[in-house]
Amino acid sequence: MLNIGIIGAGRIGKVHAESITYHVKDAQVTAIADPFMNEETTLWAKNLGIQNIYTDYKEILKDDSIDAVLICSSTDTHADISVEAIKANKHVFCEKPISQDLGKIKEVMEALKDSNVKYQVGFNRRFDHNFEAVRNAVEEGKIGDIHIVKITSRDPDAPPIEYVKVSGGMFLDMTIHDFDMVRYLTSSDVVEVYAAGTCLVDPAIKDAGDIDTAIITMKLANGAIAVIDNSRKADYGYDQRAEVFGSKGQVAVTNDTNSTAVISTSEGVTAEKPLYFFLERYMESFSKEVSLFVRAIIDDTEVPVTINDGLQPVLIAKAAKKSLDENRPVLLSEITM
Amino acid sequence: MLNIGIIGAGRIGKVHAESITYHVKDAQVTAIADPFMNEETTLWAKNLGIQNIYTDYKEILKDDSIDAVLICSSTDTHADISVEAIKANKHVFCEKPISQDLGKIKEVMEALKDSNVKYQVGFNRRFDHNFEAVRNAVEEGKIGDIHIVKITSRDPDAPPIEYVKVSGGMFLDMTIHDFDMVRYLTSSDVVEVYAAGTCLVDPAIKDAGDIDTAIITMKLANGAIAVIDNSRKADYGYDQRAEVFGSKGQVAVTNDTNSTAVISTSEGVTAEKPLYFFLERYMESFSKEVSLFVRAIIDDTEVPVTINDGLQPVLIAKAAKKSLDENRPVLLSEITM
Amino acid sequence: MLNIGIIGAGRIGKVHAESITYHVKDAQVTAIADPFMNEETTLWAKNLGIQNIYTDYKEILKDDSIDAVLICSSTDTHADISVEAIKANKHVFCEKPISQDLGKIKEVMEALKDSNVKYQVGFNRRFDHNFEAVRNAVEEGKIGDIHIVKITSRDPDAPPIEYVKVSGGMFLDMTIHDFDMVRYLTSSDVVEVYAAGTCLVDPAIKDAGDIDTAIITMKLANGAIAVIDNSRKADYGYDQRAEVFGSKGQVAVTNDTNSTAVISTSEGVTAEKPLYFFLERYMESFSKEVSLFVRAIIDDTEVPVTINDGLQPVLIAKAAKKSLDENRPVLLSEITM
Amino acid sequence: MLNIGIIGAGRIGKVHAESITYHVKDAQVTAIADPFMNEETTLWAKNLGIQNIYTDYKEILKDDSIDAVLICSSTDTHADISVEAIKANKHVFCEKPISQDLGKIKEVMEALKDSNVKYQVGFNRRFDHNFEAVRNAVEEGKIGDIHIVKITSRDPDAPPIEYVKVSGGMFLDMTIHDFDMVRYLTSSDVVEVYAAGTCLVDPAIKDAGDIDTAIITMKLANGAIAVIDNSRKADYGYDQRAEVFGSKGQVAVTNDTNSTAVISTSEGVTAEKPLYFFLERYMESFSKEVSLFVRAIIDDTEVPVTINDGLQPVLIAKAAKKSLDENRPVLLSEITM
Repeated sequence: MLNIGIIGAGRIGKVHAESITYHVKDAQVTAIADPFMNEETTLWAKNLGIQNIYTDYKEILKDDSIDAVLICSSTDTHADISVEAIKANKHVFCEKPISQDLGKIKEVMEALKDSNVKYQVGFNRRFDHNFEAVRNAVEEGKIGDIHIVKITSRDPDAPPIEYVKVSGGMFLDMTIHDFDMVRYLTSSDVVEVYAAGTCLVDPAIKDAGDIDTAIITMKLANGAIAVIDNSRKADYGYDQRAEVFGSKGQVAVTNDTNSTAVISTSEGVTAEKPLYFFLERYMESFSKEVSLFVRAIIDDTEVPVTINDGLQPVLIAKAAKKSLDENRPVLLSEITM
Repeated sequence: MLNIGIIGAGRIGKVHAESITYHVKDAQVTAIADPFMNEETTLWAKNLGIQNIYTDYKEILKDDSIDAVLICSSTDTHADISVEAIKANKHVFCEKPISQDLGKIKEVMEALKDSNVKYQVGFNRRFDHNFEAVRNAVEEGKIGDIHIVKITSRDPDAPPIEYVKVSGGMFLDMTIHDFDMVRYLTSSDVVEVYAAGTCLVDPAIKDAGDIDTAIITMKLANGAIAVIDNSRKADYGYDQRAEVFGSKGQVAVTNDTNSTAVISTSEGVTAEKPLYFFLERYMESFSKEVSLFVRAIIDDTEVPVTINDGLQPVLIAKAAKKSLDENRPVLLSEITM
Repeated sequence: MLNIGIIGAGRIGKVHAESITYHVKDAQVTAIADPFMNEETTLWAKNLGIQNIYTDYKEILKDDSIDAVLICSSTDTHADISVEAIKANKHVFCEKPISQDLGKIKEVMEALKDSNVKYQVGFNRRFDHNFEAVRNAVEEGKIGDIHIVKITSRDPDAPPIEYVKVSGGMFLDMTIHDFDMVRYLTSSDVVEVYAAGTCLVDPAIKDAGDIDTAIITMKLANGAIAVIDNSRKADYGYDQRAEVFGSKGQVAVTNDTNSTAVISTSEGVTAEKPLYFFLERYMESFSKEVSLFVRAIIDDTEVPVTINDGLQPVLIAKAAKKSLDENRPVLLSEITM
Repeated sequence: MLNIGIIGAGRIGKVHAESITYHVKDAQVTAIADPFMNEETTLWAKNLGIQNIYTDYKEILKDDSIDAVLICSSTDTHADISVEAIKANKHVFCEKPISQDLGKIKEVMEALKDSNVKYQVGFNRRFDHNFEAVRNAVEEGKIGDIHIVKITSRDPDAPPIEYVKVSGGMFLDMTIHDFDMVRYLTSSDVVEVYAAGTCLVDPAIKDAGDIDTAIITMKLANGAIAVIDNSRKADYGYDQRAEVFGSKGQVAVTNDTNSTAVISTSEGVTAEKPLYFFLERYMESFSKEVSLFVRAIIDDTEVPVTINDGLQPVLIAKAAKKSLDENRPVLLSEITM
């Protein structure tokens, strides 16, 4: 039984604590830390059976009984805590992105060089039933060689403008999942990026220096071409689709719904909207990614999402931003760490 | 080039005249007759290039240049005109049903015994792309042995009450197509029928002695069970579906629509309603059935819908009515001609 | 926090124990009993945190700290244990069917008369997301007055022949869920039943005196007509669909799948098969039904599936069997307790 | 009744001749010309009732009884014959593209300035039921302001390599329809183009200096972004889809099939492939575009596809080619006539 400490008791930290308790075999959460730990969260943690509740995450790193940590704190702290945890010889599961700063990611990579800890990045969508089905079809050769990859990723609503201002921009905040998905579905790297982006949802986003609508084209190392279309606001809900087209055919996934109900009336034939909220849509993926992290520790095997898998989407996001700024295709090799 | 005379210039007669002119190879309409031939219809016929326009269908039967007739007159005249046409040595395509009176159908069968004419009955739905696809899948063995057949057949709206009164009842007027479909999809005969029927759409239909909603269960000669559900009014349009389930799987067809458009908004994910009108839904089948009739004449082969195919659904409809009246399963063998 | 004892540690007992532990708020399993309690099950129970593990369920009934029991033992013991539990003043959740013997159900009803315990029957499909969506659409008036109800319910494979022999027949063993569904979706009672049934899947089932394929027509108290089609074996998986058609339109649900993946190749455009196994298909419904049972106890409100809801499907099943045997429609009023 | 002469009796010329004869009201084909007129085509034309059959199209232009011509000759002759026909005062329906040479298109525009003839370009897909449904939804405001347009257009198989060599390149030969579709669906012009293209289907296409796989991003005058993905070969058939996403939602169309049949077996749940051949897929659009051309002549109204609608996709195609060659986004204003 692995003992896990969770660093950060915000929304995603709580999701992980609950999903480990109820769904992850061979692991238990024995400690949680958050600088803003309050009464409600303390009660919630106790009810879950978490024994040690801290305001300072360093308490977790000091605790020899803890095998692994989940870093669920704010993005700007991910890299530094990663380095500390690695030095404390804890296995690390770090929420995405590791950092918006390539130098910080480099520091984590350096720290890992001298260590034996497992380091997994939280690209949970890789563990979604739909995207896994696409990947499996590709891996099984059902669609032959990959020619075209298409990802549609649209949020149900734009985040608060205060969040937009500190988000690092849409590519680093939102599209980063889609950049990872391109790599996951194709098992190939991105070589060049061209981003067309604009602000059509909310002018306040433009005022904050960001965009809310984009189409990003990527040339891949395997010769295929990929395209992502993003919007910060789809009125019909959270739109999460993917297609991979190849020499033998195509595999496509569309959205999940609450039920398969279809109502036919004089108004039309109406099915349900996509699930609206990302936690609802991707809930199963959170327990699955941590289960595989635990498995990799116990079996001493490679983690399914490596530090390089954490790095690459940040590089692509930075290339996309440069492309947007300079209105030209940008090579990933132009982005230096 | 076969010369065809059309007897009856009502809606279906006109449909056939136009579809032969534009879509049926090796045949042309050279005469049309209708007791109520008016100026508008005469003009329409002339524009189609029909040379002979009569009020008396006997003119068509007398014309030696005519090879075949399409009987599109009112249902109560189908059988008598069929006998006359057979005696005049014309090949006959007769709209369904041949007659609501089994004795009349017997007279046609007798007339055919001493003749060499082709006699085809107008069960056009057999030539619909969807139902053909079901039949083909069954014939190709894709679903194995047939276990269960399900047909949904719902009109978009109830007919005028004056029509209901002379229609012969829902089973003979509407379900007759579905009874034929059961035989067509299974290549098997119906042995026993149980009908549950009621009036839920319009009380005027009940006052007229008819029903508007029914579920009819049939035991087939091949051991399978079939079920039809009918309504005189589906608010969302003309609902025409079928499923055949067997030892290896199932084939199912659903409705046709004007387009594949799906609109996703905050209200839901809405596709188009089924095509509303039977002529729109089944247009292609009218030219196809006549093309095959023409083919059978030219090649001297069996017609695709025989006089027995015309008789059997009438027998089933009568058994269904008896079942409804007596609230018990009725054997087809109980229905005597 | 309600203390629950589970009587019967077979497949369904284990499902309930796990789902209560992980998903049901305000309740915990503190005891479990099974006459064949073995080492493996004991270990499983301990790992779940269940403190008391018995071979004799009477130990549970004696324990004053236990508020409610789940009866998950073999069907023939449901009624007797129900009566004992009621007398021991335990709230009861009883797996379906209460009994195949109407006299036994009557005994439970009698016992309930003099008690204040809650008694819920385990028709879990009422708590499935798809069937709930149908019911909600009906309740919200979206389809108007109900005219036709259609349920397709086909198992992925026939049960072992030894099970068939003691199952009470397909109607009591399998269709009973569908009979309940008709009542649930329509909020109406069944008045008359006509069953057409046969053996097409496996002749051994016929030798065991049972059928494996059926179409059952029901007339409802609200004037609507319902039809169920059943097969013991659908090669493509567990086929669970429903349609309710009414004066304003139709609501329909189809099967759940593992993913939305569609693969298009030269072979066709292929989606996933329905989920194969009933536990996979209906897993969420098990925690939901028990959650509502717990809720009803705590809030002292009516349970969502009453003893009468447990009785009615047994009456319908018996009428269906009588209909099959006598080949005639049978009134529910003909079935006497 | 309008008299029409058809110039060019190849595949598309024959399609128009038949569809006018059978489906276009108020028009008849009275002449057809083709330099390679042979016995078979002559017989075909006579059977259709076409009176005048020529090898020299100038005979048609000289014939005063002819009101309009359809130019269905080889692409390189479209512009010159257009100018001649305009000068001969014939209304002109010209197959797409008018020319691959912008100077030639300019000559046609010049000729039109001094004339009263109607000039329509053959972008038939505008008259397809699916794409019309998208356009209608957009025009009716159902999706609000347009943000993202996505078009998937993949041929079922690559053309012969000899054809590829003279085709003008994939953008001018194939994507040109999709460029027109972007303009049609959005009622907006393209301002800037970025094309990523490669050769993945057949290396012979690369040797011929062309590509077979592409993703083209466009910035539109209305602020929206559009993306087209192309392949010369989709193993599952002719893939023709479109989506328009906006502030209120999305409208999407997918492929047409021969039937709605879905076969469920142990192998999966399989629907039909898209219609394979463009003539099968778009047949109705050919009669519709000519019907509207005839209508515009008779009513003296604007044609639905103007000379500018013919020019713009050529400009976009040329910008796309320049983008591909120079690997940078290209403004349409960079392309000079």
